[in-house]
Amino acid sequence: MNVSRDNRSISHFVIKRLPRYYRYLGNLLDKEQRRVSSQELSELMNVTASQIRQDFNQFGSFGQQGYGYNIPFLYNEIKNLLGLSQSYHMILIGGGNLGQALAKHEHFVKRGFVVDAVFDSDESKTGMFTGNAPILHSLSLPEYLSGNKTDIAVLTLPESEAQAVTDVLCANGINAIWNFTNCEITVPPGVYVENVHLMDSLMTLAFNLAEINKNVCKK
Amino acid sequence: MNVSRDNRSISHFVIKRLPRYYRYLGNLLDKEQRRVSSQELSELMNVTASQIRQDFNQFGSFGQQGYGYNIPFLYNEIKNLLGLSQSYHMILIGGGNLGQALAKHEHFVKRGFVVDAVFDSDESKTGMFTGNAPILHSLSLPEYLSGNKTDIAVLTLPESEAQAVTDVLCANGINAIWNFTNCEITVPPGVYVENVHLMDSLMTLAFNLAEINKNVCKK
Repeated sequence: MNVSRDNRSISHFVIKRLPRYYRYLGNLLDKEQRRVSSQELSELMNVTASQIRQDFNQFGSFGQQGYGYNIPFLYNEIKNLLGLSQSYHMILIGGGNLGQALAKHEHFVKRGFVVDAVFDSDESKTGMFTGNAPILHSLSLPEYLSGNKTDIAVLTLPESEAQAVTDVLCANGINAIWNFTNCEITVPPGVYVENVHLMDSLMTLAFNLAEINKNVCKK
Repeated sequence: MNVSRDNRSISHFVIKRLPRYYRYLGNLLDKEQRRVSSQELSELMNVTASQIRQDFNQFGSFGQQGYGYNIPFLYNEIKNLLGLSQSYHMILIGGGNLGQALAKHEHFVKRGFVVDAVFDSDESKTGMFTGNAPILHSLSLPEYLSGNKTDIAVLTLPESEAQAVTDVLCANGINAIWNFTNCEITVPPGVYVENVHLMDSLMTLAFNLAEINKNVCKK
C-alpha cells in the first residue's frame, strides 16, 4: 500500500523509517552540519547506504556525487511528510506517574506536541498543574472537547477505564489516540491508535536475555 | 531463524507474538476463566483463529474440539518460553520523571521485574527513594554492579550521557538494556538492546493523523 502526499506516492515501509531519519538529521542539524553522504548516514544509523539512497529517492531527494545530501532540504521534506510542520494539541487522560512524566517530556514540546490539559478522576488533583498543563476532572472531558481543539489523546490511565474513556473520546471527535495502557482498545473506523505496550517490550527483552544466558551456559 | 528451548524449535515470528498472548491469557486467568477457544481468543485479540491455532501448535498445545485450549497450561508454557518463571533484577539510570514513573510501575513487579536501585548524577537526590528503590549516585554504578546481581539496565537519562553509561554497563557485565533515550546506543556483541523510542512513536501517530485529516478533507 502506498501513501501519496502532494501527489507523490511513498511506500509504507519508507514511512515507518521516516521518524528515525528525521531524528538523525535533526541531530546533525543541531551540530550545524549541512550535508551528509549516504555512507556517513549509513554508519550512524546502521542501515545500508543503498537502502538510504532508495528511500530518499522516493521523495525526490537525490544526493550528488561527492557532495551528498542537503540536510536542511531533506529534514524539511521529512518534516512535511510526517505532518510536523504544524503543532498538535494533546490531552492526557490519567495523571499518575507515567502521565506526569509524559506531560513534562521536553522532546514533545520541542517538536510541536503541546500538552494542553491532563484529566484525572481523583478530585484532590483537580486544579493542580503537571508541567504547564492544568489537571481537570475526568467528568469534564466531553465539555472540554466541545470547546477546545484537540488532536491527540494520550491514555495513561488504568486498563479497567481505558475502553470507556476511549468511547467518550471517539464520540467527541478525537481520531488519534496514543495508548500506554496494557490493553488493546476498540475504536470506530477512521480513528488511529498507536500503542506503546511497555510490558510487551519488557517481556521481549527478558526473552532475549534468556536466549543470551542460554548461549553463555553452552560455551 | 528459529529459537529452540527445551529441544523445541519456535519461529521468531511466533516469539514476537508471545507477550501479547501472555497478556490476554493472563487477563482471562484473572477472571478465573479456565479454557478458551481459538475463535474467542481471535475476537478478543483481533488475530485470525487459524493464526492462533498455528502458533499454539508450535509449542505443543493442541486445542480440543468443543473444549478449546487449557488456559493455565498455555499460560505457563508461554511464561517459560518468555523466561518469566524467574524474577529479574533491574536498575534504572536516570531518576527524572520517566525514570520515577517506570520505577513505580506496578505491572513490572507483578511480572517479576524488580527495580533494585535508581542511579542519578544529581547529588541532591542521593539517599532518597523512588518507590522502593534507593537513589544512588551515578559514580557508584561500577561498584554497585560488582557486588549486586543485575539482569537489566533501563536507560532514562539524557541522550548526551547514554553512550558513556552504556559503555560502563557493558564493561561491568550487563547484557540486557531497555533504552528509553531518544538515540541508538552501540553495544558489544552478546548484549541485547530493546528500544522504546517515544518520539518516533508520536511522530508515527502524527503522520497517520495527517493522513486521516487529508481523507476527511477530500470527502
